[in-house]
Formats: sequence, structure tokens, C-alpha cells
Amino acid sequence: MSYRDLSRKELLELKKQLEQEYQEAKSKGLTLDMSRGKPEGRQLDFAMPMLDVLNSESHVKSIDGTDCRNYGAMDGIIETKTLIASMVGASPKNVIVYGNSSLNIMYDSISRSVTHGVMGSTPWCKLDKVKFLCPVPGYDRHFAITEHFGVEMINIPMTTTGPDMDMVEHLVSSDPAIKGIWCVPKYSNPQGYTYSNETVKRLAALKPAASDFRIYWDNAYAVHHLYEEQDELLEILGECEKAGNPDLVYEFCSTSKVSFAGAGIAAMIASEANLVDVKKQLAFQTIGYDKLNQLRHALYFEDLGGIQVHMKKHAELIRPKFEAVLKVLNEELSWAKVGTWTEPKGGYFISFDALPGCASAIVEKCKEAGVVLTGAGATFPYGKDPEDSNIRLAPTCPTPEELEVATKIFVLSVKLVSIEAILDTCNEKTA
Amino acid sequence: MSYRDLSRKELLELKKQLEQEYQEAKSKGLTLDMSRGKPEGRQLDFAMPMLDVLNSESHVKSIDGTDCRNYGAMDGIIETKTLIASMVGASPKNVIVYGNSSLNIMYDSISRSVTHGVMGSTPWCKLDKVKFLCPVPGYDRHFAITEHFGVEMINIPMTTTGPDMDMVEHLVSSDPAIKGIWCVPKYSNPQGYTYSNETVKRLAALKPAASDFRIYWDNAYAVHHLYEEQDELLEILGECEKAGNPDLVYEFCSTSKVSFAGAGIAAMIASEANLVDVKKQLAFQTIGYDKLNQLRHALYFEDLGGIQVHMKKHAELIRPKFEAVLKVLNEELSWAKVGTWTEPKGGYFISFDALPGCASAIVEKCKEAGVVLTGAGATFPYGKDPEDSNIRLAPTCPTPEELEVATKIFVLSVKLVSIEAILDTCNEKTA
Repeated sequence: MSYRDLSRKELLELKKQLEQEYQEAKSKGLTLDMSRGKPEGRQLDFAMPMLDVLNSESHVKSIDGTDCRNYGAMDGIIETKTLIASMVGASPKNVIVYGNSSLNIMYDSISRSVTHGVMGSTPWCKLDKVKFLCPVPGYDRHFAITEHFGVEMINIPMTTTGPDMDMVEHLVSSDPAIKGIWCVPKYSNPQGYTYSNETVKRLAALKPAASDFRIYWDNAYAVHHLYEEQDELLEILGECEKAGNPDLVYEFCSTSKVSFAGAGIAAMIASEANLVDVKKQLAFQTIGYDKLNQLRHALYFEDLGGIQVHMKKHAELIRPKFEAVLKVLNEELSWAKVGTWTEPKGGYFISFDALPGCASAIVEKCKEAGVVLTGAGATFPYGKDPEDSNIRLAPTCPTPEELEVATKIFVLSVKLVSIEAILDTCNEKTA
Repeated sequence: MSYRDLSRKELLELKKQLEQEYQEAKSKGLTLDMSRGKPEGRQLDFAMPMLDVLNSESHVKSIDGTDCRNYGAMDGIIETKTLIASMVGASPKNVIVYGNSSLNIMYDSISRSVTHGVMGSTPWCKLDKVKFLCPVPGYDRHFAITEHFGVEMINIPMTTTGPDMDMVEHLVSSDPAIKGIWCVPKYSNPQGYTYSNETVKRLAALKPAASDFRIYWDNAYAVHHLYEEQDELLEILGECEKAGNPDLVYEFCSTSKVSFAGAGIAAMIASEANLVDVKKQLAFQTIGYDKLNQLRHALYFEDLGGIQVHMKKHAELIRPKFEAVLKVLNEELSWAKVGTWTEPKGGYFISFDALPGCASAIVEKCKEAGVVLTGAGATFPYGKDPEDSNIRLAPTCPTPEELEVATKIFVLSVKLVSIEAILDTCNEKTA
């Protein structure tokens, strides 16, 4: 029996009781943060031995002899290219290793396209209109970059297998102003969905009206599994090549949530023709990135196996946190039918869909009781969720105990706001 | 008695003898590189203990408690701001610490101005014409950035006290299309000149026609002295403030030639209003830079004193190299009067001016004999030295012994090309 099946009287009684619980929780003066996808301290502790692999006695040369303390090797050292390639199943020749942030690479890729175009295309700043497809809900920082550059963003509904491909195919093939699509293809932000093989193949086979259309493939959670049973993502560069579209994709990847957030390494993976184009511009921007940190990562992890062993430690810490949140959601909200949520097998987030029109009020109510969530609307372009329904939960930073408390407050807020919404609808109906 | 005073016959005899010496040198099959301002291995060795200050046992928190392994502190940690501020004589509140490359910050500053303007000004990509003043000879990578963005560059003659300020003042105050000037104010690239107090004050007191005009103050060699007796540079932020122009300057600085080239830290120093403007954009580009490397630098050097002690070791290695080059130039070329050169007290370069029309041929002749120099023209916008006269010598990478050999080949090339030029002039006169 869901909330909607309750009578007005029952709802009012329930509301009264819930309000009392909420006031009690609020009176505790908590400060809990479930807003950002940030590793917690113990995850970072796991990588501390990485700080020992380079010391004053070290041979600080790349295997090809490059002195990692000096200028040069603009696109990265070979062993780190190989490590990154193994994370995403690509070839080292398709990798440029940059600095510490894949977001920075994505920003620079958009910025370069705005000022200089893509492989000789008209710079976007010379065009009347540039548009991007944005699977929603999605990652707020992606949308912020395209908004910053005045790109018009078009919402594309997400499904459990990826973006609505009928819509993507139709738009991309018919509108030359559409220059890109933002994708987090594995353990998506915020749902934790992984694109199906069919979705990847259909993306790789797109026939864009714009020659400078690129898939922005933010493979942020390539190795971020919570369970032994893992999602598998098709390697997209190979699929693009097979489909006769070798240059269709810019892939991004980093170790921000593997080694250190902010002191990791980031990379772009793309066809050799794309990399030639990118490096032409890059040579004006820098002489090269921090190769000591690149070497540090290559020596510490050695290969994909090393990363996998490391990420298992992360999973053991994070999994109970996801489960703590999901347990409360399942126990408290399953029957009420005032929301749905995802149960990811990896990544950093849980996506919650409240009754339409309720998300902002829920986030506000949580905040009043000391629980900070990602702002409602943040998962949509321009910060506008047309349904005011989606809320992103980020369980990695607090402890499981804190998460249980925070999720209970969340659930109370969901219930209270939902009851008010249902009562309002009843009032409208009777009015 | 200079070459010009010699008779045609004497010149021809001299040429014959020099050609023999040149062929002998060439037959040795040397490969020597005096082309780039790169530290040599032993300079980098000095900084190796820096790799020990952070290890698996370290407390990796900033003094304000920021965990340097995690996201946050977009504009840098306070102790590293303080260290950078001390290098340039500014205040930590005026510093943003970035990643590993000041060139990257300069590129990004131009790119940001192109796409988003400066403090609310019209983005440069929306303007018909944007111009930059370029003191010449100057740094090729500066000119390459502005050329890459289609900025028109105007040559400004350099003097021993800085750019020709009459010309700068006239142009900047009369042409609103002029948006910036590239400056390497201390131990300039390539001359090793340091701007006089008067030059700094006049720059700080400019009354630009464009509100978005900025001085690009690349203080690359702030602590790079070769001798106890050092050049002093007036701190420009303070001068700008005194002159009622607090927002006139973007200053840049790095430890690329202090700690590790490519694995150092870089910073921008500017008024708080400028930094607010810059950070507004930066928040779209990154969550933050590598704070572990920032902390590593702060802990290792501690303060300006630590940097100065460190840089003395550099000076002891580099000084003999500069002196080896200058000794040969003085011994071999003083009397001939076929070139002039600078004798810097710091920085990374010696600037050589050959007879007009001779630079390209000299560089080519050196190359034939195995000595690589910076390309002729590289020190000018568009790679075009109108006089074909300037050659940049970069003595830091080879050993003093190699430098002596390389400089002898350089001198032979200068002599041979100059004699040919003088003979050509004689032929023209007699024709």
C-alpha cells in the first residue's frame, strides 16, 4: 500500500508523526555531507606507499631514457601511456598523458574547439550556434563547461542502457550545429548505469551532420567496481574504427579516484589523427606535464593488475557505504512509492528520483536538518531539472554510521515533502 | 682593426684559413646543442632530496588542515602561495598556485581573454583586431601563443633598461586594439637585461586606451642569479597600485628552473580583483591542482632563503658555462667587430647580434658542423627578424668543455659568414 493509497486523514496523521521525528533529528545539530563524489581519507591512505617509489636515490628516467625531471615528452612517458591504455582497454599509441585533472582536459578540448575548431573545422566561436547533447541526469561539471562557452544544451533521457539512442541518432544526423555529446559510459554519474554493447555500437556508428562532432567519453569510473560481479563496457575506439568512424571519440580518464584526488594523472585517448590535431595546439600551451608523477604512478601500479588489487581495497571501504544508504532506502521507501533509486555496482553515486516537483524541497529540508546534498537540478543542464525530481546521493565521504543517520533524515524529508505534494494534489482535486 | 678595415685580399686569405679550420671542426662529427634553456642533469640532482620530504609516513596536510591528497583548494595551499610570493616580492593573497607550467598559465590567460574577455570586457574573439606589443628580441614561446590566437604583434625595440618606453606609452595610450605586452623583466630572454626602476614605473603608470590591456609579466628568472652581485627588479604589483593601476598586470612565475623542469610548480600573481575574475573561469576548468607537489615544494625550500641557497648551487654550475662562452666570444670576436653580445648576470641566455643579414647563415653553418642553435628569427614575432641579426645562445645544457668547442665553431661560422657579407658589400660597391 503506497502513500497514494492512504486517505487524507491517514496522510495527515503520518505527517504529524514524521514531523516530530524530523524535529528530533534536526535538534541534534548534525553536519553531514553527501554532496560530492570525493574519496575519504582511508582510500587515500591506501595510495601512500606511492610516495616512496620515487626518492632521492631513484633512477628517475623513463624506460626510453627520458629524464623525468626535465623538459620534454609533451604527450607523456611510454610506461604511463601503457598503464592508462590498460585501464580503458585501448592502445598506448592512442594516449596523451596530461596533468592532474581530466576535467581540465575536457575544458581545454572544448576551449580549443571554440578558438581553433576540430581538425581544421570552423572555430566554434565563429558559428552562430553550437549545441551539445546532454544525457540527463548527468554530471554537473560537464554541463557547466558547455554552458560557460555558450553552448546550447539539449537534454537526452537516460535509460538503464545509456542515452535514448533513437533521439541521439536523429538529432546528430540532422543538425550540423550539434558538435558533441557528454557521456559517462561506465557507472554513470549519477545513476551508476553502464552503456550496453548496443548503445556503444550505435554511438560508434553515428553519422553526424557535423564533421567536427565528437563523443566526449568521460570514462571516469573505468576501474571503480564495488563488487566482484562487474559491469563491462565495450572499448569505444575500436568500435568507432570498425564502424568507419575512427575519429569520432575523445575519451578521458584519470586516476583521481584511484591514487590521489588532485594529485593523480589524467589522460586523453583518441585516434592518432585526433591526437595529431590536439598536439598541434598543445605545443603552444605547454612544454610538457609532470613526468615525475607519471613515473610514480607507472612504477607503483605497474599494470592493470596492480590497479585492480588497489581498487578492491577501495571497494571494500565504499561498498558498505552504498549498502548502508540502499538498506535505509529499501526499508523505508519501498512500500511508500514516493521515489525510485538506482543500485549501482560501481562508481560514486546513487541517483534518486522523487515525485515530480519535490526534489528542491527535499534537498532544502535535508539541509535544514544538517544534511548537505548536491543541489537539486545540478544533474541537469543550466541547473534546471524540468521535473524537479532528481537528487544525486554521494555516499563515499561519510562513514557508514553517518550515512545511516543522513539517509534516515533524507528519507524523512522525502516522506514529508511527498505527503505535502500528495495532499496538495488532493486539495486541487477537491477544489 | 676590424674586419671592415681589412683589404679584399686580406679578407680572402683570412676566409681561406678559416674555412680550413671550419672543415676540420666539421670533420669531427660533433653533436652539440645550445638551442634551449634547459637545466642540465646536475642542476636537477640538487633537487633530488625534495623527493624525500613526502613519503608514506608523511602528514600530508596543509597548515590550514587541507588534505593535500584530496580535492579542493583550487587556488593553491597557503604555504606554497607564501613561498611563491617571496620569490617575486608580492603578497600571498595575490597568488594562485597552478600546476607545473607558467607557460600553460599564460596560454590559458590569453585563451580565457579570447573566449570570455577580461573583467567583463568584450571577448577578444568578437573583436576585429587584437594586438600585442612584443619587445624584441624576446621569448619565442610567448610570440607563438599570441600568433596561435591570431593576435597581431608589434615589435618594440629592447634596450638595456627594458622596452622602448616612449614607443610603448604612445601605442598603448592611443590604440584600444592593443591588449597586452609580453615582458621578461628580469634577466630577459634572450639578453639577460633587467628592466630599470624607471621602466617598471613607466609601465605601471601606463594609461591604456583598452580597459582590458594587461602587462604579461613573465618573471621567469626572479631568483636565477649567476653572481653575488645581482640585478634588482622593482616589484610591479606595488608600483601599479601606487600609480592607480592596480589591475594592470598579470605576473607569472615558476620553479621549473629551480626544482624540476616540468615537475615544478607555477603561479600567477595579480591584484585581488584580477584573481576573482580568473578564478571565476578557473572553477569551470579544474577542481584544483596537484597540492602534494605544492606541499613538497613548500616543505623542501621552506622560504626564500632556502631557494636562494639552492640557486647558488645552480649558479656555481652554470656560471662557468656562461663564462666559457663569453671568453671565446671576447677573445675571438672583440677586435673583428662582426657582432655584439650581452654579458648577463643571470637567467639562461646570451643574446648575440651578428652583422645584418647574417644570422640565418650563421645558424645554418653551425648546424652543418654539428652545433644546434635556436633557429634564427625565433626571438622575433612570426619568426621574422627584420635584420636577420639576432641569435640566442643557451649555454646551460652542455658542459663547459663542450661549450668551448661549440662556441669556437659558432665563432668560426660568424667570421666566415661575416667575411662573405663584407665581401658582397665590397662587390656591390665596386660593381
